[in-house]
Amino acid sequence: MLKAMTLAVLLALSGIAPAAAQQSYGTSLSLEHAKKILAAAEAEAIKNNWQSVIAIVDATGHLQLLSRMDNAPYGSIKIAIGKAEAAFNFRMSTKLLQDRVNSGTAMHLLSSGATLIEGGLPLVVNSKVVGAIGVSGGTTSQDAQVAKAGLDALQ
Amino acid sequence: MLKAMTLAVLLALSGIAPAAAQQSYGTSLSLEHAKKILAAAEAEAIKNNWQSVIAIVDATGHLQLLSRMDNAPYGSIKIAIGKAEAAFNFRMSTKLLQDRVNSGTAMHLLSSGATLIEGGLPLVVNSKVVGAIGVSGGTTSQDAQVAKAGLDALQ
Amino acid sequence: MLKAMTLAVLLALSGIAPAAAQQSYGTSLSLEHAKKILAAAEAEAIKNNWQSVIAIVDATGHLQLLSRMDNAPYGSIKIAIGKAEAAFNFRMSTKLLQDRVNSGTAMHLLSSGATLIEGGLPLVVNSKVVGAIGVSGGTTSQDAQVAKAGLDALQ
Amino acid sequence: MLKAMTLAVLLALSGIAPAAAQQSYGTSLSLEHAKKILAAAEAEAIKNNWQSVIAIVDATGHLQLLSRMDNAPYGSIKIAIGKAEAAFNFRMSTKLLQDRVNSGTAMHLLSSGATLIEGGLPLVVNSKVVGAIGVSGGTTSQDAQVAKAGLDALQ
Repeated sequence: MLKAMTLAVLLALSGIAPAAAQQSYGTSLSLEHAKKILAAAEAEAIKNNWQSVIAIVDATGHLQLLSRMDNAPYGSIKIAIGKAEAAFNFRMSTKLLQDRVNSGTAMHLLSSGATLIEGGLPLVVNSKVVGAIGVSGGTTSQDAQVAKAGLDALQ
Repeated sequence: MLKAMTLAVLLALSGIAPAAAQQSYGTSLSLEHAKKILAAAEAEAIKNNWQSVIAIVDATGHLQLLSRMDNAPYGSIKIAIGKAEAAFNFRMSTKLLQDRVNSGTAMHLLSSGATLIEGGLPLVVNSKVVGAIGVSGGTTSQDAQVAKAGLDALQ
Repeated sequence: MLKAMTLAVLLALSGIAPAAAQQSYGTSLSLEHAKKILAAAEAEAIKNNWQSVIAIVDATGHLQLLSRMDNAPYGSIKIAIGKAEAAFNFRMSTKLLQDRVNSGTAMHLLSSGATLIEGGLPLVVNSKVVGAIGVSGGTTSQDAQVAKAGLDALQ
Repeated sequence: MLKAMTLAVLLALSGIAPAAAQQSYGTSLSLEHAKKILAAAEAEAIKNNWQSVIAIVDATGHLQLLSRMDNAPYGSIKIAIGKAEAAFNFRMSTKLLQDRVNSGTAMHLLSSGATLIEGGLPLVVNSKVVGAIGVSGGTTSQDAQVAKAGLDALQ
């Protein structure tokens, strides 16, 4: 019960309507649309002087767009893609997945091979998952802030 | 001792007779038999309006049958296979493995690379492991319910 | 010139309209539809007393259905999936790819990591690639015959 | 000697000044610069109504930028990255590598795991390799034309 409340609070705080388990996949964004999302995310990173790798997967889970900002860590390439894929596959924010692991309630998720690290968000339009964005390079909350800026450009 | 009891209780609650560690492998089911198991599992998912990926491995651990229901998450393909393989390799329900990890008694299992997530069951005939079924796509308890429906068709 | 003619002849002989480079992906088949294709392919294998692994990927390239007939080689699991993926990714019959390699005109294709072995066919509806089928277990021409039977059920 | 001459002829015919084996790596392009290269390559693809995946690696061989145009094959993601990496690692056009394989003079290159397929070019500034571009989605000559348009924007 407490755990359910914790998740609900997290959802409310994050301002993100995560995909429920029964949510389905929609039609992929156009590359042009994805570029707008990337540009908004990069602008947020630049504004804060953060160096990010930003990855966007489409509605089929395939990589659509990836950009590594100057001086972003090389290791972030794989992590950013992994966050986008996890948000896509689980159809929810990777922060929720990270919290489930760190709270000790779902350590088993670590065995999924998925990147359960804050900074990945599903891109949802009309309750359909049309892709996902993953960001890596800063702290996890910085990464999430950059991803959120991308998500906001989806509207 | 306590751990053994805990497992025994879990077994009783789950109504599943898991393969004991000393259990051996038997003869693979025929594809025809595996299809009946798959059909029963899919019927359970359909009845509940769940979208599942269902994977069955044979008595040698090799993939025998896999079906992805319309709109099931793409990420569930790998997870369903992983659950079936884990249930096969450990010769027990993946829920037991998940519980060992989440209870903190066997975190080391995470280093195995196995998918320690509820929803995988060994298929046991006359105390011989003749295969395993793994399900992914819903919550872990939904996945387990679908797998159990498949197991029941084994009888 | 001769090479171009050879390909044209192959196309004519195979009775398959291969996807041109500009062909695009369509909407995935339903699982129900994919099962009919699988059933037709398996019936062809059974009729000839062949043991096949048959894999079907959907319009996004993800595995949708896989079945390994009794006594089919375990190594055919990976190969059947690989053939389906290659036919999907290249949007043409894997026999055409195999011929290009064996004729010595395109040895470089071997570096693609794709499974360039006869027995994989794109599933095409209204000039859109809606998936692909890959078969392994027999000789390459047997595998192609089984795959073709599946393709014919698409109509 | 003959092989070296053959390469020289190929170079002359292709109009590309490939990095010689003794060439060294320079300083990575800025992301801004890489985006100009990508834009020029995409413009070439759009002009010809081709759908390409375009990947750019920096002077350390790490992925810097990737874009998949609408309706480009999913399989081209891996191939485009592979072409860029091969052009970077071998410090020469992947067409040269492809020709070495198809001419039968260097079949052993297939054992490298590298993507030896036309459509990858090193990005060279003042005789230093500062990155590489890889393109996939069309025929190999189309891919090469798109990559060349990107390279030209480097000047």
